[in-house]
Amino acid sequence: QETNSPAFGKGLFNLVGKDSSWTMKIGTRMQILSITNWDQNDGGNLADAESNFLIRRARLKFDGYAYSPKLKYKIELGLSNRDISGASQYTSYAPRYILDAVVMWNFYENFELWAGQTKLPGNIERVISSGNLSLVDRSLVNSRFNIDRDLGLQLRHHTYLSDKFLIREKLALSQGEGRNVTTGNQGGHQFTARLELLPFGEFKGKGDYSGSDLVREESPKLMLAATYDSNQDAVRTRSNLGSYMENDTGLYSTDINTLFIDAMFKYNGFSFMGEYADRTADNPVAVNTDGTPTGEVVAVGDGINLQAGYLFPSDWEVTGRYTNINLDEQITGTQPVSQYTLGLSRYIVGHKLKVQTDLSYLSTEGNNDELMYRLQLDVHF
Amino acid sequence: QETNSPAFGKGLFNLVGKDSSWTMKIGTRMQILSITNWDQNDGGNLADAESNFLIRRARLKFDGYAYSPKLKYKIELGLSNRDISGASQYTSYAPRYILDAVVMWNFYENFELWAGQTKLPGNIERVISSGNLSLVDRSLVNSRFNIDRDLGLQLRHHTYLSDKFLIREKLALSQGEGRNVTTGNQGGHQFTARLELLPFGEFKGKGDYSGSDLVREESPKLMLAATYDSNQDAVRTRSNLGSYMENDTGLYSTDINTLFIDAMFKYNGFSFMGEYADRTADNPVAVNTDGTPTGEVVAVGDGINLQAGYLFPSDWEVTGRYTNINLDEQITGTQPVSQYTLGLSRYIVGHKLKVQTDLSYLSTEGNNDELMYRLQLDVHF
Amino acid sequence: QETNSPAFGKGLFNLVGKDSSWTMKIGTRMQILSITNWDQNDGGNLADAESNFLIRRARLKFDGYAYSPKLKYKIELGLSNRDISGASQYTSYAPRYILDAVVMWNFYENFELWAGQTKLPGNIERVISSGNLSLVDRSLVNSRFNIDRDLGLQLRHHTYLSDKFLIREKLALSQGEGRNVTTGNQGGHQFTARLELLPFGEFKGKGDYSGSDLVREESPKLMLAATYDSNQDAVRTRSNLGSYMENDTGLYSTDINTLFIDAMFKYNGFSFMGEYADRTADNPVAVNTDGTPTGEVVAVGDGINLQAGYLFPSDWEVTGRYTNINLDEQITGTQPVSQYTLGLSRYIVGHKLKVQTDLSYLSTEGNNDELMYRLQLDVHF
Repeated sequence: QETNSPAFGKGLFNLVGKDSSWTMKIGTRMQILSITNWDQNDGGNLADAESNFLIRRARLKFDGYAYSPKLKYKIELGLSNRDISGASQYTSYAPRYILDAVVMWNFYENFELWAGQTKLPGNIERVISSGNLSLVDRSLVNSRFNIDRDLGLQLRHHTYLSDKFLIREKLALSQGEGRNVTTGNQGGHQFTARLELLPFGEFKGKGDYSGSDLVREESPKLMLAATYDSNQDAVRTRSNLGSYMENDTGLYSTDINTLFIDAMFKYNGFSFMGEYADRTADNPVAVNTDGTPTGEVVAVGDGINLQAGYLFPSDWEVTGRYTNINLDEQITGTQPVSQYTLGLSRYIVGHKLKVQTDLSYLSTEGNNDELMYRLQLDVHF
Repeated sequence: QETNSPAFGKGLFNLVGKDSSWTMKIGTRMQILSITNWDQNDGGNLADAESNFLIRRARLKFDGYAYSPKLKYKIELGLSNRDISGASQYTSYAPRYILDAVVMWNFYENFELWAGQTKLPGNIERVISSGNLSLVDRSLVNSRFNIDRDLGLQLRHHTYLSDKFLIREKLALSQGEGRNVTTGNQGGHQFTARLELLPFGEFKGKGDYSGSDLVREESPKLMLAATYDSNQDAVRTRSNLGSYMENDTGLYSTDINTLFIDAMFKYNGFSFMGEYADRTADNPVAVNTDGTPTGEVVAVGDGINLQAGYLFPSDWEVTGRYTNINLDEQITGTQPVSQYTLGLSRYIVGHKLKVQTDLSYLSTEGNNDELMYRLQLDVHF
Repeated sequence: QETNSPAFGKGLFNLVGKDSSWTMKIGTRMQILSITNWDQNDGGNLADAESNFLIRRARLKFDGYAYSPKLKYKIELGLSNRDISGASQYTSYAPRYILDAVVMWNFYENFELWAGQTKLPGNIERVISSGNLSLVDRSLVNSRFNIDRDLGLQLRHHTYLSDKFLIREKLALSQGEGRNVTTGNQGGHQFTARLELLPFGEFKGKGDYSGSDLVREESPKLMLAATYDSNQDAVRTRSNLGSYMENDTGLYSTDINTLFIDAMFKYNGFSFMGEYADRTADNPVAVNTDGTPTGEVVAVGDGINLQAGYLFPSDWEVTGRYTNINLDEQITGTQPVSQYTLGLSRYIVGHKLKVQTDLSYLSTEGNNDELMYRLQLDVHF
């Protein structure tokens, strides 16, 4: 029996190779989720309950450095059916088992070069790990507009403008069709730039990319950031996500641009996260060579997401969220939607062992409303 | 080199987190199997040999407790193609990689609440791990009638009626469509109740749920048990297994009820396991809205399985098995079958390193008989 | 924190069970690859650049012995989409996650019996691990003619003819349809025999099955070998690989024979590898019962691959490769191709941490030529 394993939530193993020639932290986690949905029926009442019980996520994570502390790596694998779904001709009809497989090389001072597959520097909500959210899951703004993971290169840099004022720059050059693609680049490449301003210095415990103020920041901390993403000759309806826009000669392509402006603020148990997303496309309606529409369109439009929570000293948290999405109705035929979410979380060992529940009311113009109740258990080693 | 690893068969790792904040046993196992089948030809002779060599199962298993010994968990993953097969629209077209992902909370005295995906408290033969069988594989009664794994909740309790007389109650509420489903509950829910009577006390080394009397019980041990399972508005032909009964408007559904009565007896190297299974359905013939049959029917009928073995002091075991299945012929169009199996096992390190072989004769009324020979090697770390 | 982990490249864990009852080395590796292709256009210029960035391979490897040093095992799992692709009705429509799952029993003196799934004793280039190549990837001769992995038995033996002269004999009996098949043997079985002659003794550090002379052999080392493989009633176009030859009554089958002659030579940083492959089939054109061709044909023909490299004292290596393939043009309709490759490798920690790049010019008779540039990073724990 090995009794020198890390504390709960700190990984299964924290390996250090001979002569410190490498390190690896191995972690695993799972989320057990129950969802119940009610639709508003013609009489205006909520009815037709539908339920779903699932292993929402189950992951294995490996990270550390190889040979030199300047050469870091991260591998994250998905195990649940939701994690690995998405097989298509573009993934060799194989499940998408690998989430991250990336090498990060600190080649000079504050510069890092990343190569492989990992999250793009997109909206904050996407980059926060699904295990560190303050509600059961991410918002509709994220699911409509995020730029997820991709294969390619990233260049990252950070510097201090003053004693405290930290700025970070993140650039990415990617294939533009998302993760686990085996068929190579279609259309053109994707370019991403993100700038992050932290005027009051770093958050404690990487709190800028973690939901809820679990560390109860003693002084106010803020991150203000913007991402601009240009996917040249993109072939999918949501930039590097969504359906492939197939037409009579192969794949329809158009430039898709996505803008994110987001903020994170934390102070003394209070946390606020806000996001604005906007997507445009040169020619959002996919057409065949003779100009007839194929039926696929780029999901152009914008959305806003505002979320705030307070962590009581008892480690119970109440969180509220407002989400509004306006897709271009003429192009997408989709009505604006608003969602109101109220969440309650009990952090037993921070994000590592927690029970979260939330209630969401979805209001769609001209359509029936929906109510959703979720309950989730997280266990992260 | 770490020389403080567990003994062979006791897991790869037995981790204990700092301050005993968690534990994890990590194990792995594989089964290499060879099968040869002969069909009786029109002349009455066994001929047309067909062979199959495969990695039958390969598994990774993680279990222990998280944060508190009262909060246990188990994760089991399948690796072989047979383990992970079964992708469909109901599993996001992804392989079914996760077998178990369940959390078990001992919230009060002898009560445990389980949440997640794991085996239902069904027939004993199903619940015995495939690595702990006394023949190469489970019987036809199991493959026809078992209720496998599902997603949902279980409530478990045990108590002693006297010094020795142990009883266990197991209740489950499940989605009713089996494991790894991502599309939520179809039709209604599934309810399972199992009662187990152990009048002479617990078996040594969890022998009630393990084939063969490897520990050579010094006094007779018996478990008598019954399970009643009601799958409300079930949509698959074998309750939560089998084909989905698709019809013109979606999925046909009917209540499917399954009864199991089973027993395990062990004494001094001798072991006996018996099972009776019976399945009924309110309306076993799946129909379209106009009443025409879709072609799918619920596999209603009953079956019996009797198996006995003796473990010689040399750790060789001889096992015999008789299996009989009577599906309702009018509904299913299936003739009764009987199977006679004779097995020989050599336990080198118990079930952890063993070679098993068996010969099965299958007799089907009105059809050609079949002979099957199997040879399997198990290696379990 | 565990600081007694192996050195970089020597595995994540080197476990030794209690009382030396088992051992396991656990390793992992990944390859991040970028490919750019140019086609010669009608004007004779190289144009139409296409790029592909992918996680080429990601693997988990487990090996050691179980219970006795005479009973070794190896399990290798693929994680990347390229690794696990190939799902079909013959693999239960499941991804091919397991690469190796094999048990090796040293039952008598220099004899070993292998059972399970692993590489057949085919051409040397195939048997060299993809992590130990001296160019970015294997040659076209390998991709056209290799006999890959299969399920079945192998018998291996080695002996010394003199003080130094080592010979090895390897025999295999396999299903003949390749790895991860769950549908059993189709057609007949596959028989493989390989003889290896090492007149100057063993290579240092298993260098006979590793690219590049990283150990800088102090005296010349040579392996000369030949494999003859006969796949009886084979049903796939490249023996146990390629398309299944389906016809009107099921699967067309014919005997396919493959011959390999290969050599490896190393001395003082210089390495040479040569291979000749030849494939014949009794009736290479797949037909229906009425004799009409199905469109599938066995890829009969021959190929040659010659490769040499020199490792400079700085651990930079320059490698050249010439590959020529002549498929039977009348049967396959395929023109002869030649490929010229020039590679540059930088071994930072041998094959365990390396950057490799190569440039290949493909010349096809009567067709447009192609240029391919590749850059790959290997990280192996």
